[in-house]
Amino acid sequence: MSRHAIHLQKAIDALKRMILSLGADVENSVKQAVQSLAQRQIDLATKVIETDAEIDQREVDVEEECLKILALHQPVANDLRLIIAILKINNDLERIGDLSVNIAERAIYLSNVARVDLPFDLQKMAEKVQSMLKRSLDALVNRDEKLAYQVCADDDEVDTMNREMYGCVEQAIKKDSANLNSYIQLLSASRYLERMADHATNIAEDVIYLVTGDIIRHGSNFSQEEADF
Amino acid sequence: MSRHAIHLQKAIDALKRMILSLGADVENSVKQAVQSLAQRQIDLATKVIETDAEIDQREVDVEEECLKILALHQPVANDLRLIIAILKINNDLERIGDLSVNIAERAIYLSNVARVDLPFDLQKMAEKVQSMLKRSLDALVNRDEKLAYQVCADDDEVDTMNREMYGCVEQAIKKDSANLNSYIQLLSASRYLERMADHATNIAEDVIYLVTGDIIRHGSNFSQEEADF
Repeated sequence: MSRHAIHLQKAIDALKRMILSLGADVENSVKQAVQSLAQRQIDLATKVIETDAEIDQREVDVEEECLKILALHQPVANDLRLIIAILKINNDLERIGDLSVNIAERAIYLSNVARVDLPFDLQKMAEKVQSMLKRSLDALVNRDEKLAYQVCADDDEVDTMNREMYGCVEQAIKKDSANLNSYIQLLSASRYLERMADHATNIAEDVIYLVTGDIIRHGSNFSQEEADF
Repeated sequence: MSRHAIHLQKAIDALKRMILSLGADVENSVKQAVQSLAQRQIDLATKVIETDAEIDQREVDVEEECLKILALHQPVANDLRLIIAILKINNDLERIGDLSVNIAERAIYLSNVARVDLPFDLQKMAEKVQSMLKRSLDALVNRDEKLAYQVCADDDEVDTMNREMYGCVEQAIKKDSANLNSYIQLLSASRYLERMADHATNIAEDVIYLVTGDIIRHGSNFSQEEADF
Protein backbone atom coordinates (compact mmCIF):
# COMPACT_ATOMS: atom_id res chain seq x y z
CA MET A 1 0.00 0.00 0.00
CA SER A 2 1.36 3.41 -0.89
CA ARG A 3 1.69 6.08 1.77
CA HIS A 4 -1.18 7.95 0.06
CA ALA A 5 -3.41 4.88 0.19
CA ILE A 6 -2.62 4.37 3.87
CA HIS A 7 -3.50 7.97 4.68
CA LEU A 8 -6.76 7.68 2.76
CA GLN A 9 -7.64 4.44 4.52
CA LYS A 10 -7.03 6.02 7.91
CA ALA A 11 -9.18 9.02 7.01
CA ILE A 12 -11.99 6.75 5.81
CA ASP A 13 -11.82 4.65 8.98
CA ALA A 14 -12.09 7.80 11.10
CA LEU A 15 -15.04 8.98 8.98
CA LYS A 16 -16.78 5.63 9.45
CA ARG A 17 -16.39 5.95 13.22
CA MET A 18 -17.85 9.47 13.07
CA ILE A 19 -20.97 8.42 11.16
CA LEU A 20 -21.55 5.36 13.34
CA SER A 21 -21.21 7.41 16.49
CA LEU A 22 -23.70 9.92 15.08
CA GLY A 23 -25.97 7.01 14.18
CA ALA A 24 -25.82 5.70 17.76
CA ASP A 25 -26.72 9.13 19.13
CA VAL A 26 -29.64 9.46 16.73
CA GLU A 27 -30.87 5.97 17.69
CA ASN A 28 -30.75 7.08 21.30
CA SER A 29 -32.65 10.26 20.53
CA VAL A 30 -35.41 8.27 18.81
CA LYS A 31 -35.60 5.88 21.75
CA GLN A 32 -35.90 8.67 24.29
CA ALA A 33 -38.46 10.57 22.22
CA VAL A 34 -40.65 7.48 21.93
CA GLN A 35 -40.26 6.76 25.64
CA SER A 36 -41.15 10.34 26.60
CA LEU A 37 -44.32 10.01 24.53
CA ALA A 38 -45.32 6.61 25.92
CA GLN A 39 -44.57 7.45 29.55
CA ARG A 40 -45.46 11.16 29.58
CA GLN A 41 -41.97 12.16 30.64
CA ILE A 42 -41.59 15.89 30.05
CA ASP A 43 -38.00 15.96 31.35
CA LEU A 44 -36.89 13.31 28.91
CA ALA A 45 -38.68 15.05 26.03
CA THR A 46 -36.94 18.31 26.93
CA LYS A 47 -33.61 16.49 26.94
CA VAL A 48 -34.26 15.19 23.40
CA ILE A 49 -34.98 18.72 22.22
CA GLU A 50 -31.88 20.14 23.89
CA THR A 51 -29.44 17.52 22.67
CA ASP A 52 -30.53 17.94 19.05
CA ALA A 53 -28.12 20.88 18.71
CA GLU A 54 -25.24 18.44 19.26
CA ILE A 55 -26.57 16.11 16.57
CA ASP A 56 -26.84 19.06 14.20
CA GLN A 57 -23.24 20.06 14.89
CA ARG A 58 -22.06 16.50 14.36
CA GLU A 59 -23.78 16.41 10.97
CA VAL A 60 -21.87 19.54 9.96
CA ASP A 61 -18.63 17.95 11.18
CA VAL A 62 -19.19 14.76 9.17
CA GLU A 63 -19.90 16.74 6.02
CA GLU A 64 -16.78 18.85 6.51
CA GLU A 65 -14.76 15.67 6.97
CA CYS A 66 -16.20 14.17 3.77
CA LEU A 67 -15.26 17.30 1.83
CA LYS A 68 -11.79 17.30 3.35
CA ILE A 69 -11.20 13.72 2.29
CA LEU A 70 -12.49 14.39 -1.21
CA ALA A 71 -10.25 17.44 -1.56
CA LEU A 72 -7.10 16.03 0.02
CA HIS A 73 -7.18 12.41 -1.12
CA GLN A 74 -9.26 12.55 -4.28
CA PRO A 75 -10.58 9.03 -3.81
CA VAL A 76 -12.00 7.04 -6.72
CA ALA A 77 -14.17 3.96 -7.28
CA ASN A 78 -15.34 2.26 -4.06
CA ASP A 79 -13.84 4.84 -1.73
CA LEU A 80 -15.56 7.68 -3.57
CA ARG A 81 -18.86 5.81 -3.57
CA LEU A 82 -18.53 5.21 0.18
CA ILE A 83 -17.88 8.86 0.96
CA ILE A 84 -20.85 10.00 -1.10
CA ALA A 85 -23.02 7.37 0.62
CA ILE A 86 -21.86 8.66 4.03
CA LEU A 87 -22.67 12.25 2.97
CA LYS A 88 -26.22 11.17 2.18
CA ILE A 89 -26.65 8.94 5.23
CA ASN A 90 -25.40 11.81 7.37
CA ASN A 91 -28.25 13.94 6.07
CA ASP A 92 -30.83 11.24 6.74
CA LEU A 93 -29.56 10.79 10.30
CA GLU A 94 -29.84 14.51 11.00
CA ARG A 95 -33.42 14.50 9.69
CA ILE A 96 -34.30 11.57 11.93
CA GLY A 97 -32.93 13.63 14.82
CA ASP A 98 -35.26 16.49 13.83
CA LEU A 99 -38.20 14.07 13.76
CA SER A 100 -37.28 12.91 17.29
CA VAL A 101 -37.56 16.55 18.34
CA ASN A 102 -40.98 16.74 16.69
CA ILE A 103 -42.14 13.65 18.61
CA ALA A 104 -40.69 15.04 21.86
CA GLU A 105 -42.68 18.26 21.30
CA ARG A 106 -45.86 16.22 20.90
CA ALA A 107 -44.93 14.28 24.05
CA ILE A 108 -44.74 17.52 26.05
CA TYR A 109 -48.12 18.67 24.76
CA LEU A 110 -49.75 15.32 25.48
CA SER A 111 -48.19 15.03 28.96
CA ASN A 112 -49.96 18.23 29.95
CA VAL A 113 -53.47 17.17 28.94
CA ALA A 114 -55.82 14.33 29.80
CA ARG A 115 -54.73 10.94 28.49
CA VAL A 116 -56.74 9.67 25.51
CA ASP A 117 -57.12 6.07 24.51
CA LEU A 118 -56.64 4.68 21.03
CA PRO A 119 -57.02 1.07 19.93
CA PHE A 120 -53.66 1.29 18.20
CA ASP A 121 -50.26 0.08 19.33
CA LEU A 122 -48.05 3.10 18.59
CA GLN A 123 -45.33 1.49 20.69
CA LYS A 124 -45.16 -1.48 18.34
CA MET A 125 -44.83 0.87 15.38
CA ALA A 126 -42.07 2.79 17.20
CA GLU A 127 -40.20 -0.44 17.90
CA LYS A 128 -40.38 -1.42 14.24
CA VAL A 129 -38.99 1.96 13.20
CA GLN A 130 -36.18 1.80 15.76
CA SER A 131 -35.30 -1.67 14.54
CA MET A 132 -35.22 -0.43 10.93
CA LEU A 133 -32.81 2.35 11.86
CA LYS A 134 -30.59 -0.01 13.82
CA ARG A 135 -30.52 -2.58 11.03
CA SER A 136 -29.84 0.03 8.35
CA LEU A 137 -26.71 1.08 10.28
CA ASP A 138 -25.71 -2.55 10.90
CA ALA A 139 -26.09 -3.13 7.16
CA LEU A 140 -23.73 -0.21 6.54
CA VAL A 141 -21.11 -1.50 8.99
CA ASN A 142 -21.22 -5.05 7.65
CA ARG A 143 -21.92 -4.13 4.00
CA ASP A 144 -24.87 -6.50 4.37
CA GLU A 145 -27.16 -6.07 1.36
CA LYS A 146 -29.57 -8.76 2.55
CA LEU A 147 -30.23 -6.90 5.79
CA ALA A 148 -30.61 -3.66 3.84
CA TYR A 149 -33.26 -5.25 1.60
CA GLN A 150 -35.11 -6.38 4.74
CA VAL A 151 -35.21 -2.78 5.96
CA CYS A 152 -36.67 -1.63 2.63
CA ALA A 153 -39.35 -4.32 2.83
CA ASP A 154 -40.27 -3.29 6.39
CA ASP A 155 -41.05 0.22 5.18
CA ASP A 156 -44.29 -1.08 3.64
CA GLU A 157 -45.35 -2.47 7.02
CA VAL A 158 -44.78 0.89 8.67
CA ASP A 159 -46.81 2.61 5.93
CA THR A 160 -49.65 0.17 6.62
CA MET A 161 -49.43 0.86 10.36
CA ASN A 162 -49.62 4.59 9.70
CA ARG A 163 -52.77 4.08 7.64
CA GLU A 164 -54.30 2.00 10.43
CA MET A 165 -53.45 4.72 12.91
CA TYR A 166 -55.25 7.20 10.69
CA GLY A 167 -58.36 5.02 10.73
CA CYS A 168 -58.25 4.78 14.54
CA VAL A 169 -57.86 8.53 14.93
CA GLU A 170 -60.72 9.17 12.53
CA GLN A 171 -63.06 6.95 14.57
CA ALA A 172 -61.86 8.43 17.86
CA ILE A 173 -62.45 12.03 16.76
CA LYS A 174 -65.97 11.20 15.61
CA LYS A 175 -66.80 9.80 19.07
CA ASP A 176 -64.85 12.24 21.20
CA SER A 177 -64.35 15.55 19.44
CA ALA A 178 -63.53 17.31 22.72
CA ASN A 179 -60.07 15.71 22.63
CA LEU A 180 -59.53 16.47 18.93
CA ASN A 181 -56.18 18.09 19.55
CA SER A 182 -54.75 15.12 21.42
CA TYR A 183 -55.75 12.74 18.67
CA ILE A 184 -54.22 14.95 16.01
CA GLN A 185 -50.99 15.15 18.02
CA LEU A 186 -50.90 11.36 18.26
CA LEU A 187 -51.51 11.13 14.53
CA SER A 188 -48.59 13.51 14.00
CA ALA A 189 -46.37 11.26 16.11
CA SER A 190 -47.35 8.33 13.90
CA ARG A 191 -46.49 10.31 10.78
CA TYR A 192 -43.13 11.31 12.20
CA LEU A 193 -42.40 7.63 12.84
CA GLU A 194 -43.42 6.87 9.29
CA ARG A 195 -41.01 9.52 7.99
CA MET A 196 -38.23 8.12 10.16
CA ALA A 197 -38.85 4.76 8.50
CA ASP A 198 -38.49 6.47 5.12
CA HIS A 199 -35.10 7.84 6.15
CA ALA A 200 -33.97 4.43 7.44
CA THR A 201 -35.05 3.07 4.05
CA ASN A 202 -32.96 5.75 2.30
CA ILE A 203 -29.96 4.61 4.34
CA ALA A 204 -30.60 0.97 3.44
CA GLU A 205 -30.92 1.90 -0.25
CA ASP A 206 -27.59 3.70 -0.11
CA VAL A 207 -26.04 0.59 1.44
CA ILE A 208 -27.43 -1.58 -1.36
CA TYR A 209 -26.01 0.78 -3.97
CA LEU A 210 -22.69 0.83 -2.17
CA VAL A 211 -22.46 -2.95 -2.06
CA THR A 212 -24.08 -4.02 -5.33
CA GLY A 213 -24.17 -0.92 -7.54
CA ASP A 214 -27.93 -1.44 -7.94
CA ILE A 215 -30.12 1.62 -7.66
CA ILE A 216 -33.29 0.42 -6.01
CA ARG A 217 -34.66 3.68 -4.76
CA HIS A 218 -37.83 4.95 -6.37
CA GLY A 219 -38.68 1.33 -7.13
CA SER A 220 -42.35 0.51 -7.20
CA ASN A 221 -42.05 -1.73 -4.16
CA PHE A 222 -40.21 0.73 -2.01
CA SER A 223 -42.08 3.91 -2.71
CA GLN A 224 -40.70 7.03 -1.13
CA GLU A 225 -44.05 8.75 -1.18
CA GLU A 226 -46.04 8.92 1.98
CA ALA A 227 -48.83 6.47 2.61
CA ASP A 228 -52.01 7.69 0.97
CA PHE A 229 -54.72 7.86 3.55
CA MET B 1 -6.47 27.05 -18.81
CA SER B 2 -5.11 23.53 -19.02
CA ARG B 3 -6.89 20.94 -21.10
CA HIS B 4 -7.90 19.23 -17.86
CA ALA B 5 -9.39 22.45 -16.49
CA ILE B 6 -11.32 23.01 -19.71
CA HIS B 7 -12.78 19.50 -19.59
CA LEU B 8 -13.76 19.97 -15.95
CA GLN B 9 -15.39 23.32 -16.71
CA LYS B 10 -17.40 21.77 -19.54
CA ALA B 11 -18.52 18.92 -17.31
CA ILE B 12 -19.58 21.34 -14.57
CA ASP B 13 -21.50 23.51 -17.05
CA ALA B 14 -23.36 20.44 -18.30
CA LEU B 15 -24.11 19.41 -14.70
CA LYS B 16 -25.48 22.88 -13.93
CA ARG B 17 -27.79 22.63 -16.92
CA MET B 18 -28.98 19.22 -15.71
CA ILE B 19 -29.84 20.42 -12.21
CA LEU B 20 -31.57 23.57 -13.47
CA SER B 21 -33.62 21.59 -15.93
CA LEU B 22 -34.61 19.21 -13.13
CA GLY B 23 -35.45 22.25 -11.00
CA ALA B 24 -37.71 23.64 -13.72
CA ASP B 25 -39.54 20.30 -14.00
CA VAL B 26 -40.03 20.10 -10.24
CA GLU B 27 -41.33 23.70 -10.19
CA ASN B 28 -43.82 22.68 -12.86
CA SER B 29 -44.86 19.61 -10.90
CA VAL B 30 -45.53 21.74 -7.81
CA LYS B 31 -47.53 24.22 -9.87
CA GLN B 32 -49.68 21.52 -11.43
CA ALA B 33 -50.25 19.74 -8.12
CA VAL B 34 -51.41 22.97 -6.48
CA GLN B 35 -53.64 23.76 -9.46
CA SER B 36 -55.18 20.27 -9.43
CA LEU B 37 -56.03 20.76 -5.75
CA ALA B 38 -57.49 24.24 -6.18
CA GLN B 39 -59.48 23.46 -9.31
CA ARG B 40 -60.40 19.83 -8.61
CA GLN B 41 -58.69 18.62 -11.76
CA ILE B 42 -58.27 14.86 -11.48
CA ASP B 43 -56.58 14.58 -14.89
CA LEU B 44 -53.90 17.07 -13.96
CA ALA B 45 -53.32 15.39 -10.59
CA THR B 46 -52.92 12.06 -12.37
CA LYS B 47 -50.39 13.64 -14.71
CA VAL B 48 -48.34 14.88 -11.75
CA ILE B 49 -48.28 11.38 -10.29
CA GLU B 50 -47.31 9.81 -13.60
CA THR B 51 -44.50 12.22 -14.47
CA ASP B 52 -42.84 11.78 -11.08
CA ALA B 53 -41.06 8.68 -12.41
CA GLU B 54 -39.21 10.94 -14.86
CA ILE B 55 -38.14 13.27 -12.07
CA ASP B 56 -36.91 10.28 -10.08
CA GLN B 57 -34.85 9.07 -13.03
CA ARG B 58 -33.38 12.53 -13.57
CA GLU B 59 -32.28 12.64 -9.91
CA VAL B 60 -30.43 9.37 -10.42
CA ASP B 61 -28.83 10.78 -13.59
CA VAL B 62 -27.63 13.94 -11.82
CA GLU B 63 -26.13 11.92 -9.00
CA GLU B 64 -24.34 9.63 -11.43
CA GLU B 65 -22.98 12.67 -13.26
CA CYS B 66 -21.70 14.17 -9.98
CA LEU B 67 -19.91 10.94 -9.14
CA LYS B 68 -18.47 10.74 -12.63
CA ILE B 69 -17.05 14.25 -12.39
CA LEU B 70 -15.61 13.56 -8.93
CA ALA B 71 -13.96 10.36 -10.14
CA LEU B 72 -12.68 11.60 -13.50
CA HIS B 73 -11.71 15.19 -12.72
CA GLN B 74 -11.04 15.11 -8.98
CA PRO B 75 -12.08 18.72 -8.51
CA VAL B 76 -10.97 20.72 -5.48
CA ALA B 77 -11.96 23.91 -3.65
CA ASN B 78 -14.90 25.78 -5.22
CA ASP B 79 -15.59 23.17 -7.88
CA LEU B 80 -15.74 20.41 -5.29
CA ARG B 81 -18.00 22.48 -3.06
CA LEU B 82 -20.32 23.17 -6.03
CA ILE B 83 -20.63 19.50 -6.93
CA ILE B 84 -21.43 18.51 -3.35
CA ALA B 85 -24.01 21.32 -3.19
CA ILE B 86 -25.60 20.05 -6.41
CA LEU B 87 -25.70 16.50 -5.00
CA LYS B 88 -27.66 17.80 -2.02
CA ILE B 89 -29.91 20.13 -3.98
CA ASN B 90 -30.67 17.23 -6.32
CA ASN B 91 -31.97 15.26 -3.36
CA ASP B 92 -34.12 18.15 -2.14
CA LEU B 93 -35.63 18.60 -5.60
CA GLU B 94 -36.56 14.95 -5.81
CA ARG B 95 -38.24 15.14 -2.40
CA ILE B 96 -40.22 18.18 -3.50
CA GLY B 97 -41.37 16.12 -6.48
CA ASP B 98 -42.56 13.40 -4.08
CA LEU B 99 -44.47 16.01 -2.08
CA SER B 100 -46.16 17.19 -5.29
CA VAL B 101 -47.33 13.62 -5.77
CA ASN B 102 -48.68 13.60 -2.20
CA ILE B 103 -50.62 16.82 -2.89
CA ALA B 104 -51.92 15.43 -6.20
CA GLU B 105 -53.18 12.34 -4.35
CA ARG B 106 -55.04 14.56 -1.91
CA ALA B 107 -56.42 16.52 -4.88
CA ILE B 108 -57.87 13.34 -6.37
CA TYR B 109 -59.52 12.38 -3.09
CA LEU B 110 -60.97 15.85 -2.58
CA SER B 111 -62.20 16.13 -6.17
CA ASN B 112 -64.39 13.10 -5.59
CA VAL B 113 -66.16 14.36 -2.47
CA ALA B 114 -68.26 17.38 -1.54
CA ARG B 115 -66.34 20.64 -1.44
CA VAL B 116 -65.67 21.96 2.07
CA ASP B 117 -65.00 25.56 2.96
CA LEU B 118 -62.17 26.82 5.11
CA PRO B 119 -61.44 30.42 6.07
CA PHE B 120 -57.84 29.92 5.02
CA ASP B 121 -56.07 30.91 1.81
CA LEU B 122 -54.19 27.73 0.92
CA GLN B 123 -53.55 29.21 -2.51
CA LYS B 124 -51.59 32.10 -1.02
CA MET B 125 -49.49 29.65 0.96
CA ALA B 126 -48.88 27.59 -2.19
CA GLU B 127 -47.79 30.71 -4.08
CA LYS B 128 -45.33 31.61 -1.33
CA VAL B 129 -43.84 28.11 -1.45
CA GLN B 130 -43.56 28.15 -5.24
CA SER B 131 -41.86 31.52 -5.06
CA MET B 132 -39.39 30.19 -2.46
CA LEU B 133 -38.49 27.27 -4.72
CA LYS B 134 -38.06 29.54 -7.74
CA ARG B 135 -35.90 32.03 -5.84
CA SER B 136 -33.74 29.30 -4.29
CA LEU B 137 -32.90 28.09 -7.80
CA ASP B 138 -32.36 31.65 -9.04
CA ALA B 139 -30.02 32.17 -6.09
CA LEU B 140 -28.10 29.08 -7.18
CA VAL B 141 -27.78 30.25 -10.80
CA ASN B 142 -26.70 33.76 -9.85
CA ARG B 143 -24.76 32.81 -6.71
CA ASP B 144 -26.98 35.37 -4.99
CA GLU B 145 -26.60 35.02 -1.23
CA LYS B 146 -28.99 37.90 -0.51
CA LEU B 147 -31.80 36.18 -2.35
CA ALA B 148 -30.96 32.92 -0.59
CA TYR B 149 -31.21 34.62 2.81
CA GLN B 150 -34.64 35.94 1.78
CA VAL B 151 -35.80 32.40 1.07
CA CYS B 152 -34.64 31.27 4.52
CA ALA B 153 -36.54 34.13 6.15
CA ASP B 154 -39.71 33.27 4.23
CA ASP B 155 -39.69 29.80 5.75
CA ASP B 156 -40.88 31.25 9.06
CA GLU B 157 -43.87 32.80 7.29
CA VAL B 158 -44.83 29.46 5.80
CA ASP B 159 -44.52 27.81 9.22
CA THR B 160 -46.88 30.45 10.60
CA MET B 161 -49.35 29.85 7.77
CA ASN B 162 -49.28 26.13 8.48
CA ARG B 163 -50.11 26.77 12.12
CA GLU B 164 -52.98 29.05 11.09
CA MET B 165 -54.26 26.33 8.80
CA TYR B 166 -54.21 23.91 11.71
CA GLY B 167 -56.34 26.31 13.78
CA CYS B 168 -58.85 26.65 10.93
CA VAL B 169 -59.10 22.90 10.47
CA GLU B 170 -59.57 22.38 14.19
CA GLN B 171 -62.49 24.81 14.26
CA ALA B 172 -63.99 23.34 11.10
CA ILE B 173 -63.91 19.76 12.40
CA LYS B 174 -65.62 20.79 15.63
CA LYS B 175 -68.47 22.34 13.65
CA ASP B 176 -68.71 19.82 10.83
CA SER B 177 -67.35 16.43 11.86
CA ALA B 178 -69.16 14.71 8.97
CA ASN B 179 -66.48 16.07 6.62
CA LEU B 180 -63.61 15.19 8.94
CA ASN B 181 -61.73 13.35 6.23
CA SER B 182 -61.78 16.27 3.81
CA TYR B 183 -60.43 18.64 6.43
CA ILE B 184 -57.65 16.26 7.37
CA GLN B 185 -56.72 15.89 3.71
CA LEU B 186 -56.56 19.67 3.35
CA LEU B 187 -54.40 19.85 6.47
CA SER B 188 -52.11 17.26 4.91
CA ALA B 189 -51.79 19.41 1.79
CA SER B 190 -50.77 22.35 3.98
CA ARG B 191 -48.15 20.23 5.71
CA TYR B 192 -46.77 19.05 2.39
CA LEU B 193 -46.43 22.67 1.31
CA GLU B 194 -44.65 23.42 4.57
CA ARG B 195 -42.22 20.58 3.94
CA MET B 196 -41.61 21.84 0.40
CA ALA B 197 -40.70 25.19 1.93
CA ASP B 198 -38.21 23.38 4.19
CA HIS B 199 -36.57 21.80 1.15
CA ALA B 200 -36.41 25.16 -0.66
CA THR B 201 -34.76 26.51 2.49
CA ASN B 202 -32.24 23.66 2.40
CA ILE B 203 -31.40 24.64 -1.18
CA ALA B 204 -30.99 28.29 -0.17
CA GLU B 205 -28.74 27.29 2.73
CA ASP B 206 -26.56 25.26 0.39
CA VAL B 207 -26.29 28.30 -1.89
CA ILE B 208 -25.21 30.49 1.04
CA TYR B 209 -22.57 27.98 2.02
CA LEU B 210 -21.42 27.74 -1.56
CA VAL B 211 -21.07 31.51 -1.92
CA THR B 212 -19.90 32.60 1.53
CA GLY B 213 -18.66 29.46 3.28
CA ASP B 214 -21.06 30.20 6.16
CA ILE B 215 -23.04 27.30 7.56
CA ILE B 216 -26.38 28.76 8.50
CA ARG B 217 -28.44 25.63 8.61
CA HIS B 218 -29.72 24.53 12.00
CA GLY B 219 -29.57 28.18 13.03
CA SER B 220 -32.09 29.29 15.60
CA ASN B 221 -33.82 31.56 13.13
CA PHE B 222 -34.16 29.04 10.38
CA SER B 223 -35.28 26.00 12.25
CA GLN B 224 -35.55 22.84 10.25
CA GLU B 225 -38.04 21.29 12.59
CA GLU B 226 -41.65 21.32 11.67
CA ALA B 227 -43.95 23.99 13.04
CA ASP B 228 -45.23 22.96 16.43
CA PHE B 229 -48.98 23.04 16.37
